[in-house]
Amino acid sequence: MTTLVFGHKSPDTDSTGSPIIWAWYLNEVKGGDAEAVLLGEPNTEAAFVLEKWDLPKPRIISSVDADQPVVIVDTNNPAELPDNINDADITGIIDHHKLVGGLETKGPIDIRIEPLACTATIMWKMIGKDMAQAPAWVQGAMLSCILSDTLEFRSPTTTQEDKAIAYDLARDLGIDIPLYAAEMFEAKSDVSAFSDAELLRMDSKEYTVDGTEFRVSVLETTAPKIVLDRKDSLMASMVDVAKEDGADEVLLFVVDILNEEATMLIPNDRVKGVAEKSFGANVTGDTVVLPGVMSRKKQIIPNLKV
Amino acid sequence: MTTLVFGHKSPDTDSTGSPIIWAWYLNEVKGGDAEAVLLGEPNTEAAFVLEKWDLPKPRIISSVDADQPVVIVDTNNPAELPDNINDADITGIIDHHKLVGGLETKGPIDIRIEPLACTATIMWKMIGKDMAQAPAWVQGAMLSCILSDTLEFRSPTTTQEDKAIAYDLARDLGIDIPLYAAEMFEAKSDVSAFSDAELLRMDSKEYTVDGTEFRVSVLETTAPKIVLDRKDSLMASMVDVAKEDGADEVLLFVVDILNEEATMLIPNDRVKGVAEKSFGANVTGDTVVLPGVMSRKKQIIPNLKV
Repeated sequence: MTTLVFGHKSPDTDSTGSPIIWAWYLNEVKGGDAEAVLLGEPNTEAAFVLEKWDLPKPRIISSVDADQPVVIVDTNNPAELPDNINDADITGIIDHHKLVGGLETKGPIDIRIEPLACTATIMWKMIGKDMAQAPAWVQGAMLSCILSDTLEFRSPTTTQEDKAIAYDLARDLGIDIPLYAAEMFEAKSDVSAFSDAELLRMDSKEYTVDGTEFRVSVLETTAPKIVLDRKDSLMASMVDVAKEDGADEVLLFVVDILNEEATMLIPNDRVKGVAEKSFGANVTGDTVVLPGVMSRKKQIIPNLKV
Repeated sequence: MTTLVFGHKSPDTDSTGSPIIWAWYLNEVKGGDAEAVLLGEPNTEAAFVLEKWDLPKPRIISSVDADQPVVIVDTNNPAELPDNINDADITGIIDHHKLVGGLETKGPIDIRIEPLACTATIMWKMIGKDMAQAPAWVQGAMLSCILSDTLEFRSPTTTQEDKAIAYDLARDLGIDIPLYAAEMFEAKSDVSAFSDAELLRMDSKEYTVDGTEFRVSVLETTAPKIVLDRKDSLMASMVDVAKEDGADEVLLFVVDILNEEATMLIPNDRVKGVAEKSFGANVTGDTVVLPGVMSRKKQIIPNLKV
């Protein structure tokens, strides 16, 4: 049976590119039968990357059959995967997030989780010398994943390994990193086509702090003004999104990639309290700037207090 | 703070040797500060291995402090670890069992699970070229772990990698594998000092099948007669052990390493039914021989039916 390879439900560049990379490896190097699929529409940056490297958009699935062989990449969180994921035959997990518990496998399988910025970096290490066979589109997908997840090495999640591998790939491909990253971030910043609710859900993860359920949404952009100009309707939409998704509060962080800061929207007193307690922010209006904050994983989630 | 490295609560050779190997690697190769510890008394084979390679017995701990840095090896099952394991700061997991879910980490960490016979085999691969620095006692511990977990390559969990690495290590060390394995298994077979309840708990794992909780106990021995001569008192003890441990039934499989078969004790009709449904056995007395059955992981657990 064909093995399906997929990332999480809100496909960014890493969750779109990594399945493509790994399916190539399983098919062309390991002689297997694998297909990269998506659990949702790729974001605008991921769509740009697909076009740039001439990659067909993987088909989108919403559930998996029982005993379907699957490889899960870029997440180990059942909440970010199909509801019945534990009925599938999980044959591999490759990820760079904290272990949240909840996934079960039917037997011992290959699991590789490393504290690197990007799933594709781990894949590069796992593929090892077989990278010599990788076509340009595999290398290009890898480079794109690393530049996306590290925000061109600005994010504090960036490691020396991510960086060194990205430079290697760029040299092989003849890609100018600053130019290419700027194109990717421009694509990601083009959010005009999305409704407020879509924006709030686009890159969001659920986290519970002391019994309060947050939907923690991050928008990485080189043009924060475009998003912040919509702040009133975004704040109005937060109430509906929280209700529909069973969360107590939606937190939106607009990450300014170039200026390396985040602007947090402050729709009410509870969120004001979160901003003050979590980040020591001095909140006076309906937005607050958090200097240096770029990473949900390293800087937002670990500090969240209610 | 010193990182504690430990395996599961019923330390066999792999759960005793692997922490010692990994603590060596963290200290001597990575320049860290690590200590191998045990969560219980090593079994007789593990005790023999410690003596053979002149390894001091690691101290035994029963709980971990909150935020204590730990590396977990040879298990990912919270039931086999201290109750408060998720309060610790888990910084690594190296294992070869199926993912059961339940462990959580505070951030992204190094996790490596592979479907190999033995944790030490995975460590050999992770240590890579730094194995050149490994002293004989590290190589000896590795070889012992592999011979133990593969039952000298007889177990169906054995992979070509386990085997090739064991032969490499034995050649370096000048060890005759059949002779050394025979000594190890003889040590494991010396169970005279243990009470019936101790025997039933020595190498046992809890598994639930359709709501029935089993304590699945395996005794690997080259002298099955010594254990089977005690079958009446063992069966009597099963009732108490099940009650004390909150299980519905204790299943005991006496694995005859040399003849590559298991003898299952049949204390009552429910266990008789399990033997018939799970292994197609034709049960007529209070024991039944299951030809070829050697591995709880590959042959017993996946087939258990009630």
